[in-house]
Amino acid sequence: MSKDVAIIGAGQSAFVRGYAGSIRELVFEAFREAVRDAGLTPGDIAASVVCSAPEYDKQRSPAGLLAEYLGLNPQPCFTVESLCSSGTTGLRVAYGLIKSGLHDIVVVIGFQKMSEITSAEAQERMGRGADIMWESPFGSTMPAYYAMHARAHFARYGTTEEDLALIRVKAGKYGKLNEKAVYRKEVSLEQVLNADTVAGPLKRFDCCANADGAGCLILAGADRAREMSPHPVWILGLGSASDSMTLSGRRSLDGLNCARVAAEQAYAMAGVGPQDIDVAEVHDCFTIAELMAYENLGFAAPGEGAGLIREGQTYLGGKIPVNVDGGLLSKGHPIGATGCSQVRTIVMQLRGQGGPVQVPGAAIGLVHNIGGVGIYGNVIILGR
Amino acid sequence: MSKDVAIIGAGQSAFVRGYAGSIRELVFEAFREAVRDAGLTPGDIAASVVCSAPEYDKQRSPAGLLAEYLGLNPQPCFTVESLCSSGTTGLRVAYGLIKSGLHDIVVVIGFQKMSEITSAEAQERMGRGADIMWESPFGSTMPAYYAMHARAHFARYGTTEEDLALIRVKAGKYGKLNEKAVYRKEVSLEQVLNADTVAGPLKRFDCCANADGAGCLILAGADRAREMSPHPVWILGLGSASDSMTLSGRRSLDGLNCARVAAEQAYAMAGVGPQDIDVAEVHDCFTIAELMAYENLGFAAPGEGAGLIREGQTYLGGKIPVNVDGGLLSKGHPIGATGCSQVRTIVMQLRGQGGPVQVPGAAIGLVHNIGGVGIYGNVIILGR
Repeated sequence: MSKDVAIIGAGQSAFVRGYAGSIRELVFEAFREAVRDAGLTPGDIAASVVCSAPEYDKQRSPAGLLAEYLGLNPQPCFTVESLCSSGTTGLRVAYGLIKSGLHDIVVVIGFQKMSEITSAEAQERMGRGADIMWESPFGSTMPAYYAMHARAHFARYGTTEEDLALIRVKAGKYGKLNEKAVYRKEVSLEQVLNADTVAGPLKRFDCCANADGAGCLILAGADRAREMSPHPVWILGLGSASDSMTLSGRRSLDGLNCARVAAEQAYAMAGVGPQDIDVAEVHDCFTIAELMAYENLGFAAPGEGAGLIREGQTYLGGKIPVNVDGGLLSKGHPIGATGCSQVRTIVMQLRGQGGPVQVPGAAIGLVHNIGGVGIYGNVIILGR
Repeated sequence: MSKDVAIIGAGQSAFVRGYAGSIRELVFEAFREAVRDAGLTPGDIAASVVCSAPEYDKQRSPAGLLAEYLGLNPQPCFTVESLCSSGTTGLRVAYGLIKSGLHDIVVVIGFQKMSEITSAEAQERMGRGADIMWESPFGSTMPAYYAMHARAHFARYGTTEEDLALIRVKAGKYGKLNEKAVYRKEVSLEQVLNADTVAGPLKRFDCCANADGAGCLILAGADRAREMSPHPVWILGLGSASDSMTLSGRRSLDGLNCARVAAEQAYAMAGVGPQDIDVAEVHDCFTIAELMAYENLGFAAPGEGAGLIREGQTYLGGKIPVNVDGGLLSKGHPIGATGCSQVRTIVMQLRGQGGPVQVPGAAIGLVHNIGGVGIYGNVIILGR
């Protein structure tokens, strides 16, 4: 278990619907918090990696714009994208820049301002994140794709709509406590089950919402991290994998192979297994996505994910608390910001700064962040 | 001078106006050539980094699409962007992934298919690569920005339109010999000087053209490179810097500060100076850009760039041959592909495979690749 690169600062804007400012201001909220948290100034930062999916806001090439606004010229900067997993891809790239010796301190900035376009426009753009020749022209959308995953899981393993609803109830319970979440209300099992259908079996509360938001992480090499931070959080394991962009090219739909492969890599690099994880953030863009994550990450055997939520094992106090910040289902899902927000939640947990949702004594945490419908999968293991 | 990461394969599609196939097929042309050149199969490749600016073609998140088509699942993949310097940003990121120990062999794929949109649409998108709040709404376009640089250089140093035209004449001479270039014709000094004005003092031949194209580089760590390649080309120095996105935020317009800073870094890392470079590829999106590069890279003192071209010192046989493949002015400029194409030219030179434009005994080469109007600057030094 090597400790070469650490996270020494983390920040996040509130995630909201319809942010009134520009992307500069949105990102500044997260950046200011991270810089203060790390106890440094922009001049200490050797490079910036911006994580964002294009075409939601009009500004192209945001890295250059943000570097200027945040006082990060003339340090190098660029943008990375792997759809909804862009934030953790940025973290992986920053790890490489630091461990290779190119830079000592790198800031990872994830953001998305989705409210400049209409819901229908966002839907169309998300469709074009799937194959525009063979799939998206036929009406495939994110809810429809994940609905197919849910149907496949139901058919093979007997999972039910109520199992999915239980996941949403948990998200509401913790979302209520997260002051940066879009949705801060508990929802009952009946409300989830009786909501309008979006793409059967997924109903309104089974789906996360578009949002505007930013997250920011500051990474440093071992020497600088020990020198600058009273509580560095180390990157113990990194896994990353891909799968076909076309869903018709997949062998099965009852799980995400990219998550399985990435998890194996991350566990191997960290020298730990699923049983060693104290707290996890998983990519719950839809309730079925969290359930599949339980299995793909090895928290449950294939087909047994529903058992975990039925028994309450992914609540605080359970075997493996998952998404104690309310997850994407409560927080909202500002594409490029999401991975950074997930990592921030685990950083706070490992520092003992989790407040009302602190997992007592959490020492090892995991982040699972998916891009597109299982096209890109990143798994990160963090430790004190 | 460390030799940790090498380029073991390089490929390029023809650069053309109006490619008839999809981005899959366009990229495949470059990928096939690089894979054959490196003597490996897609299964040997541990990760792929795709370099592309968005909004030219309809497909979003091209990394996932290309990984599937090229047989690169389940290996990790993602997209990087720094406008016209995306290709060399991808190389920098791949260097980090390899030297950090995350991967042994990484493919860098740069491409752009610009012909799916009209020239006017391309112009509008390029404008939105500048600041959409303070500059692009007022009509700033790439030729207009570089025209301001030219005027500033003229005013301060007495550089003339004829100096710029001499650069275009050189580009035509070498472009004629490059079978992958869009424009393969010599142009006379009179033709360049008498062409229609685009943005004074820049005339038609002073400006590169949009194009469709792809470039591909295969990078490996030292052990694999020595084992797999009879002629690895080592990454000796890497420099990268940024400048304000708004040109109104710049201290002067007679050079690009990001290029100066990146060059200093690259020379320091490689332990060489401008006088040690045998052959260079510089980002000549406009003739003035090549002239400023002479100075920003230290081939000439500030204000003395015009002397180099007047004396023919950047021709084959001169002090420092520049853009012996015809440069962007002859090849065309398919945004994401450009940096990879520049690196490929230097790789061929260092292997002695330059054909009619070989610089005898070339041992150290340099690539200068700029994103936006000096927002992003990458300088790479390569050696045998």
